[in-house]
Amino acid sequence: MNVKHHGRIQHFRTVSFDSERNEVLLIEQRLLPHEFKIIRTRDFDETAQAITNMIVRGAGAIGATAAFGLAQGALGFSGASLAKFERQMRAVYETLKNARPTAVDPVTAMDQVRAVMKAGESVQERQSLALAAAEEFANEDVRHCAEIGRHGAKLIRNRMNVLTHCNAGWLAFVDIGSATAPLYAAQAQGRNFHVYCDETRPRSQGATLTAWELAQQKIPHQIIADSAAGHLMQRGRIDLIIVGSDRTLGRTGEVANKIGTYTKALLAREHRIPFYVAIPLSTIDWNLKSGFDIPIEQRHESEVLGAWGVIDSKAQSPKPELRIHRARSRSARRVYVRVANPGSGALNPGFDVTPPELITGIITPAGVFKPGELWRRRRELGWQC
Amino acid sequence: MNVKHHGRIQHFRTVSFDSERNEVLLIEQRLLPHEFKIIRTRDFDETAQAITNMIVRGAGAIGATAAFGLAQGALGFSGASLAKFERQMRAVYETLKNARPTAVDPVTAMDQVRAVMKAGESVQERQSLALAAAEEFANEDVRHCAEIGRHGAKLIRNRMNVLTHCNAGWLAFVDIGSATAPLYAAQAQGRNFHVYCDETRPRSQGATLTAWELAQQKIPHQIIADSAAGHLMQRGRIDLIIVGSDRTLGRTGEVANKIGTYTKALLAREHRIPFYVAIPLSTIDWNLKSGFDIPIEQRHESEVLGAWGVIDSKAQSPKPELRIHRARSRSARRVYVRVANPGSGALNPGFDVTPPELITGIITPAGVFKPGELWRRRRELGWQC
Repeated sequence: MNVKHHGRIQHFRTVSFDSERNEVLLIEQRLLPHEFKIIRTRDFDETAQAITNMIVRGAGAIGATAAFGLAQGALGFSGASLAKFERQMRAVYETLKNARPTAVDPVTAMDQVRAVMKAGESVQERQSLALAAAEEFANEDVRHCAEIGRHGAKLIRNRMNVLTHCNAGWLAFVDIGSATAPLYAAQAQGRNFHVYCDETRPRSQGATLTAWELAQQKIPHQIIADSAAGHLMQRGRIDLIIVGSDRTLGRTGEVANKIGTYTKALLAREHRIPFYVAIPLSTIDWNLKSGFDIPIEQRHESEVLGAWGVIDSKAQSPKPELRIHRARSRSARRVYVRVANPGSGALNPGFDVTPPELITGIITPAGVFKPGELWRRRRELGWQC
Repeated sequence: MNVKHHGRIQHFRTVSFDSERNEVLLIEQRLLPHEFKIIRTRDFDETAQAITNMIVRGAGAIGATAAFGLAQGALGFSGASLAKFERQMRAVYETLKNARPTAVDPVTAMDQVRAVMKAGESVQERQSLALAAAEEFANEDVRHCAEIGRHGAKLIRNRMNVLTHCNAGWLAFVDIGSATAPLYAAQAQGRNFHVYCDETRPRSQGATLTAWELAQQKIPHQIIADSAAGHLMQRGRIDLIIVGSDRTLGRTGEVANKIGTYTKALLAREHRIPFYVAIPLSTIDWNLKSGFDIPIEQRHESEVLGAWGVIDSKAQSPKPELRIHRARSRSARRVYVRVANPGSGALNPGFDVTPPELITGIITPAGVFKPGELWRRRRELGWQC
């Protein structure tokens, strides 16, 4: 998608690869929306750390990052011994896999790259094939998101209010996004609608990333506290919910996504509001038999105990409620503030699991399906036994 | 309750009155948990502003503040004309009433003070009666909270995990609190339990005030993101929920409370977890016929777009996830940071309404009732036709 950068509008992908310098290029998402910056990782270890540290996040984006990280690890090997090369590849694979244990995309992406690499008969051939396969994975991600947009746009009518949770936008993929793809497609078709963005504590990806994307795209939107959605639904002010997913179980239709997704789905059922999950097929896990088997990452308590933002000196008034705060987006100093009581700790599960009975439909590049349909139609959805 | 202040443990009330200087004394709750400070309001206008600006918040505390504010307005009148005095009293009443339109407690409290004042036959007599009635209102609030604790403590068993939302603790009352009263009473009876505090965005009263209270009281607790409760309930990690209420409708059993309360009640029903609302009788509105008639305050968008906290210089690392942040509680600089995208706005409803079918019981000083029982038993619950 387009970003206004250094005064002009440029096209950027969330993840790309510099094959000359063997570096993965990533938008440093933790600085958004206050600063737009591209960082480069020098080796697969740094790439894995970028995934762990949330420089890059989102299903498709971390899939492509892991694919490029695997290629980076392959290209970083010098020597001709296939046995040593394969030993290195196993270490690279494990490092990148362990960077985000809840997500299935890095594993799917790397398995795809490794399958292509097998055709190579020398280290050099396998290195070239790794790079080609990683590039193909990224391009496929873009095509899939465009297809999600085409199918999902049909759900959006004029004057609708759409709720989003977290960021499953183009920043969560290589481009376009999953949950945002229907919004961008509907906008391209001339439809007018309004989006409520859950701020999505504790990391506030809705308030920072989704709102930033929608603002770049000039889609009308308002940020709400995660707790406000229930009230808005009670008052008939939300017509449609579209979220993304880090992992969807092909056998059961259960959806693992950012903490709070389950709550929104339960509210949606209570208020008879359609609740959709938009996913690329790579996010489907065909192996796990129960959502309770999905490892739920426990993240650091500091995320809950405070917030990252930019200081707004105009807001240092004794009556903060009466001031309007508009922080400058450029050269603003980004700081962590401790909000919570200094003597208290926190519990910080990063994800939850939404049961299929709360989900109206799953929007995929291959069409919109009921959660229970996935397994029956697994062959057309990319299942490999 | 007790607070460690200037190195020693002292007893404080949230709201009190200095009759010599005609000033209301309030704990400046917006500085907590980082700084403990008592402020004084010089006249009823400042007292109303303290309510509006959330220096004081919570049902009982703003009730007592309004009662003292009314007495302050009465005592601030000089002259002997009863007609002029009563004109001033009407202005004082309206100013304090409009300070927080969603809440019923200031109105109930002021009506109580005014009823007592009527017996006075001179300005001076009415001034004295106003002060006595305001003091009695505050003392009654303390007695009521103690009774809530006595009834509610029976619900808490050893090894339970209790969820709270927002702060209906002693900081929300004159002392002891409503939703926290059962916790303090159960602790006094020697029971061991653990509390999850919803952080309660956007103002984070759970992370700041409830956590601070529980830490002072040495009750084991953890702060969670508001979105995390659903996941914890799915995993069987919450046994009981106790919240407060700004206004409970005596005719319907509907409960208006901090935004997000409704969502917690819906989750509780889904998971068959008891959901209790702890209230003093003054919080019951016997007039309104429907929760939809409760005015829902729309608060300033800056609350959602950012956060107030103290800067932790140790957290300015490029890898913030890897650091432990423990801000110093004393002499820490409190700042507002803009978290959200600078170009985006927010919608900020302050309260929501929970329907009676989601509420297990209402804990009052007169006992625990089903929401539907309130109207039938209105005579013993303080209803006046």
